[in-house]
Formats: sequence, structure tokens, C-alpha cells
Amino acid sequence: MSVKMNGKHLAPFISEDEYKALFPQVKLAHELLHSGQGQGNDFLGWLDLPVNYDKEEFARIKKAAAKIISDSDVLIVIGIGGSYLGARAAIEALKGTLYNNTCKKTPQIFYVGNSISPAYLQDVISLCEGKDVSVNIISKSGTTTEPAIAFRVFRDMLEKKYGKEGARSRIYATTDKARGTLKELADAEGYETFVVPDDVGGRYSVLTAVGLLPIAAAGCDIDQLMAGAAAAREALAVCDENNDCYRYAATRNILYRKGKAVELLACYEPNFTLMNEWYKQLFGESEGKDQKGLFPASVIFSTDLHSMGQFVQDGARIMFETVVDIQKPQKDLYIEKSDENFDGLNFLADQNMSVVNRKAMEGTILAHTDGGVPNVLLEVESLTEFNLGYLIYFFEKACAISGYLMGVNPFNQPGVESYKKNMFALLGKPGYEDRKAELEAKLR
Amino acid sequence: MSVKMNGKHLAPFISEDEYKALFPQVKLAHELLHSGQGQGNDFLGWLDLPVNYDKEEFARIKKAAAKIISDSDVLIVIGIGGSYLGARAAIEALKGTLYNNTCKKTPQIFYVGNSISPAYLQDVISLCEGKDVSVNIISKSGTTTEPAIAFRVFRDMLEKKYGKEGARSRIYATTDKARGTLKELADAEGYETFVVPDDVGGRYSVLTAVGLLPIAAAGCDIDQLMAGAAAAREALAVCDENNDCYRYAATRNILYRKGKAVELLACYEPNFTLMNEWYKQLFGESEGKDQKGLFPASVIFSTDLHSMGQFVQDGARIMFETVVDIQKPQKDLYIEKSDENFDGLNFLADQNMSVVNRKAMEGTILAHTDGGVPNVLLEVESLTEFNLGYLIYFFEKACAISGYLMGVNPFNQPGVESYKKNMFALLGKPGYEDRKAELEAKLR
Repeated sequence: MSVKMNGKHLAPFISEDEYKALFPQVKLAHELLHSGQGQGNDFLGWLDLPVNYDKEEFARIKKAAAKIISDSDVLIVIGIGGSYLGARAAIEALKGTLYNNTCKKTPQIFYVGNSISPAYLQDVISLCEGKDVSVNIISKSGTTTEPAIAFRVFRDMLEKKYGKEGARSRIYATTDKARGTLKELADAEGYETFVVPDDVGGRYSVLTAVGLLPIAAAGCDIDQLMAGAAAAREALAVCDENNDCYRYAATRNILYRKGKAVELLACYEPNFTLMNEWYKQLFGESEGKDQKGLFPASVIFSTDLHSMGQFVQDGARIMFETVVDIQKPQKDLYIEKSDENFDGLNFLADQNMSVVNRKAMEGTILAHTDGGVPNVLLEVESLTEFNLGYLIYFFEKACAISGYLMGVNPFNQPGVESYKKNMFALLGKPGYEDRKAELEAKLR
Repeated sequence: MSVKMNGKHLAPFISEDEYKALFPQVKLAHELLHSGQGQGNDFLGWLDLPVNYDKEEFARIKKAAAKIISDSDVLIVIGIGGSYLGARAAIEALKGTLYNNTCKKTPQIFYVGNSISPAYLQDVISLCEGKDVSVNIISKSGTTTEPAIAFRVFRDMLEKKYGKEGARSRIYATTDKARGTLKELADAEGYETFVVPDDVGGRYSVLTAVGLLPIAAAGCDIDQLMAGAAAAREALAVCDENNDCYRYAATRNILYRKGKAVELLACYEPNFTLMNEWYKQLFGESEGKDQKGLFPASVIFSTDLHSMGQFVQDGARIMFETVVDIQKPQKDLYIEKSDENFDGLNFLADQNMSVVNRKAMEGTILAHTDGGVPNVLLEVESLTEFNLGYLIYFFEKACAISGYLMGVNPFNQPGVESYKKNMFALLGKPGYEDRKAELEAKLR
């Protein structure tokens, strides 16, 4: 099993009887999900995606990635939310947070269209100078403000650089299969297109073309990624006490009902930083509604033991920790003994650095548990493509079960529209005139 | 004034009377701080630091930075917590999150010794190949595990590359003025040293040599940074209703006592990402103790409106937002009208992108306020060195006042020791034998 929940440190906080008492609700959530009778059942495509995906498109993704690798120094990925986080999270987990500095045979990847910051966009534009560039625009509709602005800029850049014809062969559009602004443009221009499926929401889309094309272009093995997800799908299909994914969902829910307000995802591997962000969207958007939900926060330890560590150890007792325990690092480093021992560090020398990192983790778990913070462990053998695919599916399914346990629709996000409507009104978008005056009065 | 608190959106949540009722406590906190009679009064050096700093050392910092710029492609900054976050936060706020890709006349800067990840350390080692490297090791004692491991590795690298003599002129030690492992080594080896003052805690140290040397090496104007902090020191010295820093501290405290558990720092500028992390350490370590404190979290909008936005709009009502409103971007971008208008975006074209970003911010503030989330605005003219220095001091003082209002010692961090003791015991450090057996039993 690639991901295992270890609950041994939960004993002071949750009794086995509590799991038994909640089990009927877990079973109900499982049945709602698998029967497709629960709320949000239009968005269950992710459930069988690891086996039930479009094999022809998958082959085209690999081909497109190979072309990008062969003819591009830079790949610009344009997308926001689920059309951005999954790809970046997977690439940094597998290739490191310093990927853009360490990559040699694959292009640098810069992510734009995920904010409205002109300073950031100008920086990325300047980094394209003198380089061969391809663009992957990812937007179901093509009208989402942030990516649409960025696409105007980079489409223009490519057409100026390569001519209209040349640009066409460097723009890849991941969008709706049949309709929408971007699909129409792509068809008219002859861009190669990939599909954002109708039945997979943004935050669940990393294993579709949305995530797979950038991930493959970074040189990651997407066959293995899918294989890992498929293994998770099979391992986590049955609702019994051996289903660690369900046990994790139950643990979260029990702690929430006991009054915990914050789940703090912790990992001792900096390469997991963007996976933390991906997790925040997945759980925050799925559970955070109807004035409910665990607030998702994250830390990278031991880095953040020297910033948030004090609060976790002894601040307001509002959180529990979910520790993603990566058991084997991608690279290790042997700490040499020093004859002079000028820093008094020889007690930890003569062994691999990963051993020290594990001891820090174990020591911290015990310290935080003693401090009254429940600690759940999710054990992952290593950050390979296979295991990452497994972990992604594990989190996705835990999130769905969590949502049903919480009594919310885990697959919608009505609250995301509110800011957009206000922004459109303030920008004078046709059709929003009434709201404009009202909002401007409030701003005065 | 470089930073202004705007409370106009707080009207539905806090009445003016509440501020008046709290004012005597704010005044008391002010007096405790300025008289040096409050808890943690050994660590008040930051209060007058912007005017009362060592001018000779400051000149040496600038000289060392100039040397690093002239002879190094890469600067390795070794430090953790306050010996890392402040420098990185300031550099990325001023030069962008992509600094290591965009920098031309100044060295790339990589931060190590802030985790125990061998994979990350190996990546940075590989990036030094064929490049000229300098090292700034920042540690008061020299024995903190994370930076000490990294320093062993990079000191060795420099000595192999430049010889013992050559390495000496490329290692800069920021450490205790008189004692400790690192100070002894630096004196013995003849490294240039800078001082971590005794009366300035790690999270308050960004305007000492701890932060200033890396910041200057990135080509930032540290004179202006100090001038901004000095302006804040003067503007925020008096306790009256015009002191926005105190009003911000009072707002935080009122909302905490009303039941808010999380402060969410929000900024619409991705370059602020690491400043968010700096803020988390500052407030989290200062306030998060004795089972109290606002849990500090952060977002970058509009990026995270597509991940955490749903939760903020309509999830559990446990948070308020503090919006850092950068009013003028470092660079702007004019959005051209498109004749074809293929994306229907012309309603926002023919203007600067920064205008769109502001409308997104205004629309979001109104939406979140309507959703029941109190929004505090901290208005900053722009991210110049002067304004950043002002903002840093503003946050530092707000944090001190917040701590006294909360009834805690804002300047200690006893909880940070717990994990270290456990880690030392598990690693078999001499003197921790008893604890070792006990912990290992718990881990079985």
C-alpha cells in the first residue's frame, strides 16, 4: 500500500468506540458516493478516471509533451485554481521547488494567469526574451479573467515571435470538449486541444489533461502517476475498517465535531510545499461552505517549527495536525564526522541526513501530542510518480467522504462567484450596471 | 504616512465605543512597552533600532555586500526562522519571487539550513557547480541543528573550491558579538563577522545584520529601508487615536475576544508571499502561547480566491482578514483592446492591469464583508525599500502591543524548545539519555 494512515498517536484524543459510532455515517457517505445518489453527483468523473480515461488523448498528451521538450526552453502554463495548482504541485513534488533552476533537458515552466499582478507578469515576460516558448492555456470557458488577460499577452508574444502560423504550433489549449470561447478560438486557429471533462471539477482535475500535459512536459512519468491512482482506486474501493482513506476522513470529522477548527497539513519535505497548497484548495473548497468546514492550513517542517512551532506547541488549542510522512527522500546526504567538531554536531554525524530529519519528525509528533495537538500520520513510501498518483487519489476520495460526513455538497463552490460578480460590476462589464452603483456607494 | 489602517469596512463588526472601551488597555500596553516594564523587556532593542544602530557595522555590511556582488554568482544564506525569513521576505517583496531567474547584476540567493531535507540541499549543491559562491551563515549560537548541518557542507565546499585561505574571504558569519561556537570559529578562521544583537529576538531581527547583509547583496537600498523604519518609529511613537498601528492591534484584539480564531493576511501581490510567512512567524511566535493567540494564516489573491475563496466567503465563520493593500505596483502592464475580442474581455481593456487588480480587491472586500468576514485594510503606497521598512516596523510594533493586550509575553518562545529536546534525545545527544528511552517507548 502506497499511503497508510497511522493513528497510533491519536489514542489520547479518540477512542476506538468513536470510530465504531461514526462508522454507519462513513458507510452512508461511501454509498452516496459510489451510487451517485449524493449531492454534486454531476462531478464524479474523478472516481473512475484512473482507469476510465481517454487513451487516445493520453497518447496525444505524451506526444505534445515530447514536442514541447524538443522545441521549447520555456513552457508558459496559463491557468488559475485547479487549472494551475495540481500541475505545479505534482511537478515540484517530483522535481523539486528549484525545478526552474535545476532542469536541464526539459523546459523551465512559469505559471501565469493565476493572479492579476502586472509586476509578476512583466517578470515572466522578461524571462522569455531570447528563448523558445510554448504556451498551455487551461480554461474550461476561456473567459475567466485572470488566465484570459495572460493569454492575450502571451498569444500576442508568440505571434510576434513566430508569426501566426508558427504560434499555432506552440499553443496548446486545454478546454471544454465542445463549446466556449477558448474552444471556438482554438478550432478557428487550429491549436491542438485537450479536454477539461464536464464531470470533473477543477480541484479534482490534476489527473486529466489539465494537469497531465504540464507534468509530462516537466519530464515526469504520467503512466506511473495514473498507475498509482488506479492502485489507490482499487485499494480504497471497499468500505471496511481497513480503508485508511475512510479512516482519515472519519478522524477529521470526529476532531471537527470535538471542536477543532483548523487542520494543519505538515510535511518535512520542502518539495511538498505546493502539494500543501493543492490540499488547501481541495479541502477548503469542498468542505468550506454553509458556515462549516475545517480551516485548511499548512506548514513545512522543520522550517516552520521556527515560525509556527511555538503556536502549534502552546497557542490556542484549535488545531490538529496531519503529517505527511515521506519515508524515503529523493536524494540523501551523508553527514561526515568532523575531526575538529567545532559545532559539537558529531553526535548526529556518520549517518544520512534523512535519519536526522526522521528523528526531528518523531520528536515533534511526540512534543505536539504532549501539547494537546492530535497528530494523524499519512505514511508515504517516497515521492515517486506512482506514490504521488496514489496520494492524490487518496486525498480526493478522503475529501469527498469528508464532505458527505460534514453534510455539505463536496463538489460545488458557489461562494467563488461572489467576488467575481462584484469585480465585473466595478469594472463596468455590461449587464452589471445596477450592482455597480450600489458597490461604489459602499466603497466611498 | 507610508502605512495607513483603513477601518471603513469594519463598521458592521466593531463600534467606535469598543475602541474607546479598549483604549485604556492599549495605553497600558504602550506604557509597558516604552517604559521597559513589561514582560520580555530584555528584547526591546528593535524599538529604537532604526535610529540606534551600529553605523560602523552598517558601513561594513554595505562593503561586504558590494564584495559579494562583485565576486559571486551565488550567495548561500544559511539560517532558520528569523535568521532566514526576514531577508528572503524583503528580497522577494522588493525584487520579486522570481528574483533568482531575473537577477542580472546581483548574485542568485539560495536559502539553506532552514530544513533537514537532503533532497533540497543536494539540489542547491548542484546549482553551485561551476559558479562562484559566497556564504552568509546566520546563527547566534552556531549550534542550531539545521543551519549547522548546512554550514558543515558549504564550508567544506568552499574550502575544496578556493582552498582554506580563499574560503575565508567568502564566508560571512552573522552571530553573537562575543561568544558561542560560531563566533569562536569565525575568530579562529578570520571570517568577517556581523552581530546578532542580544536584545533583538530572531523574529524582530530583519533590520539587523541578520537581514541587512543578504538584502543588500540582492541590490536593495538598505539606507532607505532603515529610513522607512525610522519614519515609522517616529510616526507611531505616541499613543493616541491617530496611531494606526495601535488601532490595528486593538482591532485584532477586539475580534479575538469576540470569538475570531484566525487572522488571514491577504495581499494581491504575489511578491508579498514571503512577507506573509514573515508575518506568520512574527505574530504566531509572539502571541501563540499559554493556549492563546490568533492563528496566523495567509493568502495571495486573486490566486487563492480560486482555492481558499470559497471557504472565506462561506465556510466556518472563524476568521477575519487583514488586507495589505499595495496601492501602486512595481511594474504595470497596459491591456490592449483586441479587435476580434475573442475572449469578450474588451470591457476591461484599454487600461492598466493594476486597475483591474484593484477592482478585484475592492469587489472581494465587499463580498467577504457581506459574507460576515471583518476586513481590515493596511494601505501601503508601494513596495519600495522605504515603505517596506515602514511596514516592517509597523507590524513589529503592532505585534508587541497585541501581545501585551493578549496578556502574554510577546518576546519569548518557550514552546520551540520542546521538539528540539525530543529530537536531541532521539538522536542520542549526550545528556538526553533518560528522555531517549521514554520517547522510544512511545514511538513503538
